Amino acid sequence: MGIHIVRYEKDDETRWGALAGEEVIPLANTSRTLDAFLEEGPDEAKTLLASGSAKSFPAAEAKLLSPVTKPARIVCQGANYSSHREESGLEAARPPFNMIFSKADSSLCGAYEDVIRPEGIKLLDYEIELGLVIGTEITEASDIKEDDLHNYVAGLVITNDISARDIQLPQGQWLKGKSYRTFCPTGPYLYLLDGEEVPLINELELDLWVNDELRQSANTDQLLFKPAETLMELSEIMDLSRGDLVMTGTTGGVAMNLTPELLGKVTSLAVPGQDKIDMMVEDQAGNGRYLKDGDLVRCAIRSADGKINLGEQRNRIVPQSDAPPRTRNEGINATS
Amino acid sequence: MGIHIVRYEKDDETRWGALAGEEVIPLANTSRTLDAFLEEGPDEAKTLLASGSAKSFPAAEAKLLSPVTKPARIVCQGANYSSHREESGLEAARPPFNMIFSKADSSLCGAYEDVIRPEGIKLLDYEIELGLVIGTEITEASDIKEDDLHNYVAGLVITNDISARDIQLPQGQWLKGKSYRTFCPTGPYLYLLDGEEVPLINELELDLWVNDELRQSANTDQLLFKPAETLMELSEIMDLSRGDLVMTGTTGGVAMNLTPELLGKVTSLAVPGQDKIDMMVEDQAGNGRYLKDGDLVRCAIRSADGKINLGEQRNRIVPQSDAPPRTRNEGINATS
Repeated sequence: MGIHIVRYEKDDETRWGALAGEEVIPLANTSRTLDAFLEEGPDEAKTLLASGSAKSFPAAEAKLLSPVTKPARIVCQGANYSSHREESGLEAARPPFNMIFSKADSSLCGAYEDVIRPEGIKLLDYEIELGLVIGTEITEASDIKEDDLHNYVAGLVITNDISARDIQLPQGQWLKGKSYRTFCPTGPYLYLLDGEEVPLINELELDLWVNDELRQSANTDQLLFKPAETLMELSEIMDLSRGDLVMTGTTGGVAMNLTPELLGKVTSLAVPGQDKIDMMVEDQAGNGRYLKDGDLVRCAIRSADGKINLGEQRNRIVPQSDAPPRTRNEGINATS
Repeated sequence: MGIHIVRYEKDDETRWGALAGEEVIPLANTSRTLDAFLEEGPDEAKTLLASGSAKSFPAAEAKLLSPVTKPARIVCQGANYSSHREESGLEAARPPFNMIFSKADSSLCGAYEDVIRPEGIKLLDYEIELGLVIGTEITEASDIKEDDLHNYVAGLVITNDISARDIQLPQGQWLKGKSYRTFCPTGPYLYLLDGEEVPLINELELDLWVNDELRQSANTDQLLFKPAETLMELSEIMDLSRGDLVMTGTTGGVAMNLTPELLGKVTSLAVPGQDKIDMMVEDQAGNGRYLKDGDLVRCAIRSADGKINLGEQRNRIVPQSDAPPRTRNEGINATS
């Protein structure tokens, strides 16, 4: 069986811990990054969990942080479930290529932290995604099969690929609209896989609720490009390091709902910029599904048999004016 | 006056050096990353250059490496010169937003290294760009003006944003088509700016040749979104760290030349994937300007008055079959 790792803040200290039920066992490991933690931290955690007598405290007494740390590469698959492709105005079938983009690592935040809606953003959306934490250095094209996955994936996390649709689609490249600070709630736990559990990666249930209304519900067996083939393709292009995060794409049920006609217009590089933004907001703002200040987003990922349980995220949406200064923003596009 | 820093390999060691004419003065600083080097390396370099008696060797005896090191964020501006916008089928005028995307840091390579054309790539293109090396930690929205630029930019490098157009445009998100290993020749020098020289950032001449034919020639005074406003906008979205690289976009003269109609078709998310790839290759492959195996690409950036000279890149295009194993690749899209 795998183990649950947490990274937390308590008494002004940032620490790693092993989860035992509702309790956290603090680890002696003080690694600053997940990469460094993965060197010796898992062994310490296993030893303490097995001892049955390690000191612990209730998890609720700590502030849980993202177990994925900066600096990290966050590589994302786009449009990787047919149901999400369809609602986005795309052909539902598996396309001839795996769409890859990235999020800034400063978008990482904890599973219970506030998600900040930047000033001026009208189309704030959610996307529950299974996150794969890379477990090794990948520096060359590698022949990665389902059977080898445990050599490349250290563990799993829940991620929410928060997206400002009014920036993401009209501006064409998705980095900006998906990278605002707090746009990537990650955790609460890093589930370190037991080698035998790796096939379960393809049988995980994902559920996302907005204010207790179930919006997204799917199973990773619906992923169009599977983790093994995706990591193999990525290895042919770029290096990945231990502690990096690969987000596997979201399923149907997001707030955005576009016809192919509108998608074609708002994403075409041949349509002038401002027209696209105006079209997008006009068509979408009234649909009542986009995230509003005060909304609570909950995300859960687990296997049907209960063997793997990645926990539950609970993130509240707050406007930037209520957020701490470090994330304050002069507007969605101060240069225009 | 600023100083020129090199990172080089010689006698199986990787070192930092200060450039004195055609000679390299080895530094004692052994920082593994540019971030760490920027802490104390520049002072050591200045002291040795001022001493006039430091030991040196001819630069030609070392293999120069990219002065920007992994891990680094590589944040890029797209379509930031009117002449390049026009040839790409875009409206020439400054758009209402600054288009931002990223390249993988494993695309970094030295200024004289071979650029590897991945198996199956037919539309390999070049893009000379001024690269800004970030000089400080940026973790919150910051009011960055032209006058403050020296607080945020440590130095300048020549970069070439090598692009596989047959992947980049039909696949929609640009990360993959611009991130293959060796797709970001950087250097040869990191030019550490003297504070007084910062305004010259907006007056640099860029020239790129393919086999001695001048293909791109421009001045950074034509940048649509200037460095100061761009860094201000980025600060409102994401964190940047010392040693990160911001690439400011390329000018007209690349191999790619699209009509607005074709651009609209090959970039629309509403057109099925394979059709777009076929259209793009059919329209472009015959234009005779894309990079071929054996081609030599040269890039130079300097100020008209000669005060700033970032050196010259010379990169040869080689097919993947001739490249070392670490970058070997099973095809442009092994998953399809």
